Amino acid sequence: MNVAGTHYRTIWLKADNPSVVQIIDQRRLPHKFVIMDLTTVEATAAAIQDMTVRGAGLIGATAGYGMYLAALEAPRTSAEAFLKFLAEAGDQLKATRPTAVNLAWAVDRQLDAIRAGEDLHAMVAIARDTAGQIADEDADFCRRIGEHGLALIEAIAKRKPGEPVHILTHCNAGWLAFVDYGSATAPIYAAFDRGIPVHVWVDETRPRNQGARLTAWELGQHGVPHTVIADNVGGHLMQHGMVDVCIVGSDRTTYTGDVANKIGTYLKALAAKDNDVPFYVALPSSTFDWTIRDGLHEIPIEQRHAEEVKYMDGRTASGSIETVLLTPEASPVANYGFDVTPARLVTGLITERGICKPSEDDILHLYPEKRAVSGVR
Amino acid sequence: MNVAGTHYRTIWLKADNPSVVQIIDQRRLPHKFVIMDLTTVEATAAAIQDMTVRGAGLIGATAGYGMYLAALEAPRTSAEAFLKFLAEAGDQLKATRPTAVNLAWAVDRQLDAIRAGEDLHAMVAIARDTAGQIADEDADFCRRIGEHGLALIEAIAKRKPGEPVHILTHCNAGWLAFVDYGSATAPIYAAFDRGIPVHVWVDETRPRNQGARLTAWELGQHGVPHTVIADNVGGHLMQHGMVDVCIVGSDRTTYTGDVANKIGTYLKALAAKDNDVPFYVALPSSTFDWTIRDGLHEIPIEQRHAEEVKYMDGRTASGSIETVLLTPEASPVANYGFDVTPARLVTGLITERGICKPSEDDILHLYPEKRAVSGVR
Repeated sequence: MNVAGTHYRTIWLKADNPSVVQIIDQRRLPHKFVIMDLTTVEATAAAIQDMTVRGAGLIGATAGYGMYLAALEAPRTSAEAFLKFLAEAGDQLKATRPTAVNLAWAVDRQLDAIRAGEDLHAMVAIARDTAGQIADEDADFCRRIGEHGLALIEAIAKRKPGEPVHILTHCNAGWLAFVDYGSATAPIYAAFDRGIPVHVWVDETRPRNQGARLTAWELGQHGVPHTVIADNVGGHLMQHGMVDVCIVGSDRTTYTGDVANKIGTYLKALAAKDNDVPFYVALPSSTFDWTIRDGLHEIPIEQRHAEEVKYMDGRTASGSIETVLLTPEASPVANYGFDVTPARLVTGLITERGICKPSEDDILHLYPEKRAVSGVR
Repeated sequence: MNVAGTHYRTIWLKADNPSVVQIIDQRRLPHKFVIMDLTTVEATAAAIQDMTVRGAGLIGATAGYGMYLAALEAPRTSAEAFLKFLAEAGDQLKATRPTAVNLAWAVDRQLDAIRAGEDLHAMVAIARDTAGQIADEDADFCRRIGEHGLALIEAIAKRKPGEPVHILTHCNAGWLAFVDYGSATAPIYAAFDRGIPVHVWVDETRPRNQGARLTAWELGQHGVPHTVIADNVGGHLMQHGMVDVCIVGSDRTTYTGDVANKIGTYLKALAAKDNDVPFYVALPSSTFDWTIRDGLHEIPIEQRHAEEVKYMDGRTASGSIETVLLTPEASPVANYGFDVTPARLVTGLITERGICKPSEDDILHLYPEKRAVSGVR
């Protein structure tokens, strides 16, 4: 999407030097737009680990490019030494965010593809092509999610001509979390780019504030009208008819339609249900977990550092970034990263293949090839 | 309640100089416990306006003491000049927080009482006594709310011997918002002081963080086990059986049982309903609005400054208080202060007269004298 009028993806090869991978340093957003060069697999692993890049799709794409950088770095003394280096690089990348499914998937896809190369020269070329393919596919899946979701927004717009369609979203399921378009934001960008008036309520998404920091920034850069709200506000807005539709992303969705997503998603889904506001979850199919039937009881919920709740960083009046303590120093803190929204609260799932109900039947109808691998008896 | 082992109210006359009113500077909490002297009505008005003191009960008590300070300051040339000064002081106090019902009520009660004095000397004594009575009554109402709510916590404790009763609260409806005990916290303190094991989940309560700043601090000072959580977390906790009961305060409650309270309360009430967790609202009867039938459509919801959402202040590593920007500078922000929880989501109201269902019949059964003044046809 656009940053200050120029189109960017979240990861790309440097125009004048394709042995350099470039990324946006997301730790600096929204206060500074900084492009960072990656030239080694070690730097790539560090960028994933310290959340310079984050988001399921982007982590996968970054791992793909990391393997390409590893191929450039690997010793060319023998195919064996070359592939050993790549396998170790893959392990190094996988260790950075062990729960990120896309990461291991991208590494393994690269290793399988590279091993099929005829010689070292071909293997490096394959690594580069495969990295590009992983990124392109991610962008393409999000683009298609956008096309399918666009129809929903268009239908609402037709019912209220001249009025903007008000969409509430939580966390950052935006282009910054993928290679382009995003998942929850893809239908919004698609509608905006076609001239449909939209306005986005952006949950700030405590404790890490991905909404206030990232979603607000990317919508603002692309020119999409939006308003940042505290996470407490969405229910009030829905009670007063100020939200036409909710669209959120997902970190993991069971094949029965239960949705694990950023903590607080469940509360918004409850408010949507209570006020007859449609609640959609946008996800590429890589987010489905084909083995889990009961999201509430089977999806493990990560507990994160207390510091994320106790402290907050931001820009001071003098322009520096400062971290401040919010709570009493001695007060204990709990920090659950995700919650599970039961399928009964979800209106529909927007996937790259189309929109379906959050039920086993409908999901497997869209992904019939998963009947064999899913937990279906 | 206790601060570092010493009992405090939130407002009192200085021990060795009863012409000085002392308060806790709540703007400095939780990082510094600072007691501030008030010696003029002007300083008192400023303390209410800049939120050095806040909370319905405490604002009323502070206004009462402000009128006493005004009586000390007033010219004693004639009763007329004296009363004119007091009337102007009352107007000045009322103008600080025009929507605070208790403020105008305390000022008018003082003026009525003082006017009945036989001479200037008696009038000053009346002002001092009345200020004390207003504070004592506030503390007494909260103490009684605590006694009634204690029974609920005791009943839960009996069902899970040896386990703490987990109570979720939102915002600060604590002793800092009243003269002592608080409303939502009163049953918690009563249970804790009787040795019933309790543990409080404290919603941080964005954007002003009254939970993280004030509730966590006061519970910690009194020794009550508690854990601060982001506002997004409560639903997840309730889904997993980690909350036994919710107790919140109220800014205004209709005589039909709809509850206006700090923004985000409604979302927690929805989660409580969805998970069969009892959801109680603790309130002194001064919080009832006897004229409003439909809370959702008739209670006006204040919109506050965008800065409260865009910026956050806290303590830096060097110990100074710094304000930091959280969002993109250009992103618009909306800041609704309150929401309305419909009566259907409320299990019961804990008042100084006892616990009742959130229905017109039950509320007026407890307050029969209000049948005449309420909007009941």
